[in-house]
Amino acid sequence: MSMCQSADCKLCEFLSTKEDVETSFNRVETQKAKCKFGKEGICCKLCSNGPCKITPKSPRGVCGADADTIVARNFLRAIAAGSACYLHVVENTARNLKNIGEGKGNLKIKSPETLDKIAEIFDIKENDINQKAIKVADEVLKDLYKPRFEKMELVKKLSYTPRFKRWEELNILPGGAKSEVFDAIVKTSTNLNSDPIDMLLNSLSLGVATGVYGLMLTNLLNDVILGAPKIRQAKVGFKVIDANYINIMVTGHQHSDISHLQDRLIDKDIKDKAIALGAKGFRLVGCTCVGQDLQLRGEHYTEVFSGHAGNNYTSEAVLATGGIDLIVSEFNCTIPGLEPVAERFNVKMLCIDDVAKKKTADFIDFNTINIEDLSERIINEALESYKNRRNSVTIDIPKDHGHDDVITGVSEGSLKEFLGGNWKPLIDLIAQGKIKGIAGVVGCSNLTAKGHDVFTVELTKELIKRDILVLSAGCSSGGLENVGLMSPGAAELAGDNLKAVCKSLGIPPVLNFGPCLAIGRLEMVATELAENLRIDIPELPLVLSAPQWLEEQALADAAFGLSLGLPLHVAISPFIDGSEVVTKVLKEDLVNITGGRLIVEEDVIKAADELEKIIKNRRIGINI
Amino acid sequence: MSMCQSADCKLCEFLSTKEDVETSFNRVETQKAKCKFGKEGICCKLCSNGPCKITPKSPRGVCGADADTIVARNFLRAIAAGSACYLHVVENTARNLKNIGEGKGNLKIKSPETLDKIAEIFDIKENDINQKAIKVADEVLKDLYKPRFEKMELVKKLSYTPRFKRWEELNILPGGAKSEVFDAIVKTSTNLNSDPIDMLLNSLSLGVATGVYGLMLTNLLNDVILGAPKIRQAKVGFKVIDANYINIMVTGHQHSDISHLQDRLIDKDIKDKAIALGAKGFRLVGCTCVGQDLQLRGEHYTEVFSGHAGNNYTSEAVLATGGIDLIVSEFNCTIPGLEPVAERFNVKMLCIDDVAKKKTADFIDFNTINIEDLSERIINEALESYKNRRNSVTIDIPKDHGHDDVITGVSEGSLKEFLGGNWKPLIDLIAQGKIKGIAGVVGCSNLTAKGHDVFTVELTKELIKRDILVLSAGCSSGGLENVGLMSPGAAELAGDNLKAVCKSLGIPPVLNFGPCLAIGRLEMVATELAENLRIDIPELPLVLSAPQWLEEQALADAAFGLSLGLPLHVAISPFIDGSEVVTKVLKEDLVNITGGRLIVEEDVIKAADELEKIIKNRRIGINI
Repeated sequence: MSMCQSADCKLCEFLSTKEDVETSFNRVETQKAKCKFGKEGICCKLCSNGPCKITPKSPRGVCGADADTIVARNFLRAIAAGSACYLHVVENTARNLKNIGEGKGNLKIKSPETLDKIAEIFDIKENDINQKAIKVADEVLKDLYKPRFEKMELVKKLSYTPRFKRWEELNILPGGAKSEVFDAIVKTSTNLNSDPIDMLLNSLSLGVATGVYGLMLTNLLNDVILGAPKIRQAKVGFKVIDANYINIMVTGHQHSDISHLQDRLIDKDIKDKAIALGAKGFRLVGCTCVGQDLQLRGEHYTEVFSGHAGNNYTSEAVLATGGIDLIVSEFNCTIPGLEPVAERFNVKMLCIDDVAKKKTADFIDFNTINIEDLSERIINEALESYKNRRNSVTIDIPKDHGHDDVITGVSEGSLKEFLGGNWKPLIDLIAQGKIKGIAGVVGCSNLTAKGHDVFTVELTKELIKRDILVLSAGCSSGGLENVGLMSPGAAELAGDNLKAVCKSLGIPPVLNFGPCLAIGRLEMVATELAENLRIDIPELPLVLSAPQWLEEQALADAAFGLSLGLPLHVAISPFIDGSEVVTKVLKEDLVNITGGRLIVEEDVIKAADELEKIIKNRRIGINI
Repeated sequence: MSMCQSADCKLCEFLSTKEDVETSFNRVETQKAKCKFGKEGICCKLCSNGPCKITPKSPRGVCGADADTIVARNFLRAIAAGSACYLHVVENTARNLKNIGEGKGNLKIKSPETLDKIAEIFDIKENDINQKAIKVADEVLKDLYKPRFEKMELVKKLSYTPRFKRWEELNILPGGAKSEVFDAIVKTSTNLNSDPIDMLLNSLSLGVATGVYGLMLTNLLNDVILGAPKIRQAKVGFKVIDANYINIMVTGHQHSDISHLQDRLIDKDIKDKAIALGAKGFRLVGCTCVGQDLQLRGEHYTEVFSGHAGNNYTSEAVLATGGIDLIVSEFNCTIPGLEPVAERFNVKMLCIDDVAKKKTADFIDFNTINIEDLSERIINEALESYKNRRNSVTIDIPKDHGHDDVITGVSEGSLKEFLGGNWKPLIDLIAQGKIKGIAGVVGCSNLTAKGHDVFTVELTKELIKRDILVLSAGCSSGGLENVGLMSPGAAELAGDNLKAVCKSLGIPPVLNFGPCLAIGRLEMVATELAENLRIDIPELPLVLSAPQWLEEQALADAAFGLSLGLPLHVAISPFIDGSEVVTKVLKEDLVNITGGRLIVEEDVIKAADELEKIIKNRRIGINI
């Protein structure tokens, strides 16, 4: 079968030995013919008079909606859905924290320091750690459930003041986040909103809600529950899969749902059950953002976590190694393509949140089961699956795939600590020009921007060559670490100035913040740098690129980046090209609104040129 | 310009005299080429690897999603959006009731009897009318805002017990409605749910939430605020527009938002302002569902309401009469096509809820303004617009369009009263075979099921010819009344048995329940009939058809109908034909799940045959 390429050649080699296993890499080829109207966002399926499409001869749909209305409606709906995904995650994370505070599941808070920090930000005065956890969780839940006409209160507490003021001036401060999403869905329904400007501003509101709650707060709450990241070296790639263990692959973004399981899997009574079946014990094999998050907090999970195998579109290949015994889907990105591969390799699938119910998975609702029973059920299914499948399945793990020396565990906290407790060393390096600027290369991987991780890797190489330090979070990290760009040796690929910095600090030129949720951490770094420099975020020599954005969630991330006032590059247009108004607002006018700007550029060099140019101009702007 | 046809010939004649005005009727022709993949629901635009489409050679999208997953995802998302629309309406209606209870806007409760009835259903013990209103509103709001894992409490109180039990067995009782919608949006986002069965069951949950809250409760709360319907004769069609008045056309579904305006427009000080400009006063010209609702409650608004001019796709023509001075958009169906026609005829557009913000409308947020100031602003804009436009615009109102003797004001309450306070007379007529059965011909109008109102009118004629009593609600009513089927004379078109019944009672064979929201009233009638007969709803000789469904909201209505166990006909498939699983579940398996069944039939006679056959079988089933 023909297949698309990956930046990760060994992955391609491996897949090419599995000719009988169809994966997404093959389907890119059969789905090559793309609909022009869909690509440009000018197809509307909101009513039975449709589908309508905009052409020069039919500039309006039957109802009269023009290209601007249709594109803006599709765009806002996608962002609302993406925002909903992140908000679903933060809601459940807050509930999990509350449960811990209430003593359910006999769990301990792993980072009381982070809890203290959050309580301080929230103005919560409380000495009891459990009560504090409950109060923190309640503040988050209270905001999420406000009606739309009541503004959320934590936005002010968590945002950089100049940004908050700008959002207030623009009237884009979000009301209750769940109602914001809800009303955006209403707004984009049949014959409701037709105003592209209103819908674009609404996208920015959803961006703020996504960023502050879905991204920043989820990270902080997870730190409390799962332990704060610590910088360390780790193994990545297929080599992390050890067939001697019963291997569980969790896919999703709701890491705290498995907090109990992570600890339980290494309890003696449970290990003994695995040993009784001939295994050495249990391992969680990292894949998608759950894996990235486990890797980030790996310091706390050295025994149970085998390492990060790969990102979203590596997951089918991970299954095809035969080494995985159970998949637990707790959210996306559990791509549907996993289902036939799991069947082929006799891998049991479970789903613990019905939003991520897979066709072939059994469902255990984590909302209706206590966390100890949930762990029990998952463990029993893993044991059962291991027993049933190991005799009948060929295991073929390419042990030469991956790296042993990836630097991970980078967060807004651990990086600052690494720098000596303050941002001055980094700011000095930037001011001296040893680091020209910072680029967040973030988001998903897709298979269509030159291939799997291809654009991400090429752009990153191009940026570090120009002495631009790259920070990554999301499936992009998974791709970058699997090709070695997050190993210290990658310093050799950097420009002379950056290379020297990396060598002296012993770090790679690409820093790994972990899952896509950690885009929120990057933005906390941006805020702290701006604060230190006493400038607003849009003045920083800092740019964003989500070159291989994939999902609706990525568009919600993008909306946050744009509302923060950051330039944001993507290699594939987010289905807006059919509207002059939407294109102009996002690519041009936004600079004068939030300071942000969307850059769509499908050529790697041109994209790097543009991002470097912005960084250079920003340097001039702040006289460095 | 070529244009599509309407069942309303005089409307077509009028439009053909306005060759320079482009309307939706013309655009049907330019949008004739339909995308097969969109029509069949097998196009996916959830990620940047797409759009993907399912063909025999590419049976899965890049991610692996197959036709069943893609169709179910698109279907659930549309229903979630439609459900969100109705729930937005009931939420604001409850808030408006609460405001009245709190004394805001100096409004009076128009139907204390209905308030008592609701309070009794809700088990609220309270003597003070205003406190009672607040408590009723709070109960509704409390349910809407529950998290998804907490079931809403009013469902049980408002539903027919056998149905409630069935929903409970099926585990489709909805949790907090706003969270249900929210999670359905999450579920249908990129790489989340892939299970068509789970998504179809979820659609039914949303159907229950839509029906009980969005439909039934909105009607009841509106009755409290705006007065309960009373049966009466009314004028319909363009003839209701009187150019001697300052004419305001309100479009939407949130009728209670203008409760203050409706009363204020006939106050002497306000009338004097109109008179000072040379007008006789103000009139609200009925259009879309707001018009249907005003017509339904017309008994309480004889002075201010001029009558119902027409449905959704009549609205552009209504503007083209030149007789409208101001449009107030408070929700859909404010079709975007109104915007250029309003510009052409110099009609000012206002929008009072940003979900319905129109590109060319000024926005006044009813959420942030007190209702007295809102009325003031609207009145001033109307005065200003009247002054500015009347000298420059040609007014051409076809006074021969419409009818004077439409029977309106039919509701679950007024119909029962008309029958003598109980349902026995109707049940007897059905049992005796004088009425063979009941068909709810409901929902929107579209332009593609044989033309504007064409299928609706033809099917209705075919059904009444077969002695099937037709009840209508939604834009379908607007179409049926404008062609005379809701005038007593239409009895002549009915079969001999039904004709005799109509003549003896002085009613038409098609009864007008008003706006689409009143589909909830039909379902209350169905419940009361079933209760009287001591059978479950799926046993009734009662069928539904939404022949010309248009919007996402209509699909949410459909989901309620199907969860109630009713057979539901549509003339245009709801974009599901690409999935065998979805098609089979909805068209076949559902009979054994809820008792409901989707019937897609684009031929009028065949549809009538099928509906009649079901009615006949149901009659046999209950031995009549």
